[in-house]
Amino acid sequence: MELYFVTGNRHKFEEAKFLITELEPKIKLEMLGEVGKLEIQADNLEEIVLFAAENLNRQLKVNFFVEDAGLFIRALNGFPGPFSSYVYRTLGCKGILKLMENIEDRYAEFRSVIALGWGGVIRIFRGTVRGKISSEERGSYGFGFDPIFIPEGSNKTFAEMTIEEKNRHSHRAKAVKLMVDFIKTVM
Amino acid sequence: MELYFVTGNRHKFEEAKFLITELEPKIKLEMLGEVGKLEIQADNLEEIVLFAAENLNRQLKVNFFVEDAGLFIRALNGFPGPFSSYVYRTLGCKGILKLMENIEDRYAEFRSVIALGWGGVIRIFRGTVRGKISSEERGSYGFGFDPIFIPEGSNKTFAEMTIEEKNRHSHRAKAVKLMVDFIKTVM
Repeated sequence: MELYFVTGNRHKFEEAKFLITELEPKIKLEMLGEVGKLEIQADNLEEIVLFAAENLNRQLKVNFFVEDAGLFIRALNGFPGPFSSYVYRTLGCKGILKLMENIEDRYAEFRSVIALGWGGVIRIFRGTVRGKISSEERGSYGFGFDPIFIPEGSNKTFAEMTIEEKNRHSHRAKAVKLMVDFIKTVM
Repeated sequence: MELYFVTGNRHKFEEAKFLITELEPKIKLEMLGEVGKLEIQADNLEEIVLFAAENLNRQLKVNFFVEDAGLFIRALNGFPGPFSSYVYRTLGCKGILKLMENIEDRYAEFRSVIALGWGGVIRIFRGTVRGKISSEERGSYGFGFDPIFIPEGSNKTFAEMTIEEKNRHSHRAKAVKLMVDFIKTVM
């Protein structure tokens, strides 16, 4: 049976694919470009993925999931949060580092929320990783703000980790694992 | 006849009200809180207001308009753009000034896009004002990023202007005037 990850981000797809191997060969993960995926402006990721999933659920007759993630920096009142992708495209990691100059509180969280459409019913799975904003960009793996985020329990940024290493820490991996546990109970 | 400005922002309503007086008493402007107004995440304001207006057009049986505006800073690749409201709530004017430290190119534009639903048909009106980001916050009128934006042809920030003065320059006033011109031709 196919499970479709509706995303335009190949990095996210690769990260999820690693974690879904344990469902194979019963479940086969496929990437579906963002045809008709609508993202609303909202301060929380749940609202965004639920809205997108409910729309897709009306269009698609297959099992699918959407995911949205964000970097929430405590000293910046949660910025860039649900708008991380736009902020990455405009300000980049350098913009965040500039905003964080002379700020002692480096605490940040990456959060991921998945909405799974399974048999026409939508379920939500969440993952969070605590960490801090580094003082400079490091590493070239991953994507987005990975070069400036150091998860708790590591000295490396996400961009200094392979997919397997990042998946031992990451918000997205936590959410995907919860989804995988759910799928095991119903398939 | 009533015309409803669907917005949660009283400042915007007051600015528009000043410009619509010339349609009175035939047209009476009313504020309608954002019941059911959906904003999508998109890099351009047109998409955002069109989506909101099409949704409202299905729900409302009255003439209405929605407006979205953004501050587009050239040196920041258009940031904060369509996400100005969120960025204002999290980073504030101070965050923008920090991002602009040591940047010589201060050019910025405020853009406003209105979608008017009139007799069930949606029409778009645009207004832009060119200007620059000030070196510090000045003034206490207006809202949002008004304290750091100086329109071309003035030495004052928007926040140092009364509504009447701001309306001689502003993006929103330009868009509202175009809408008023249209309404005159059909009412």
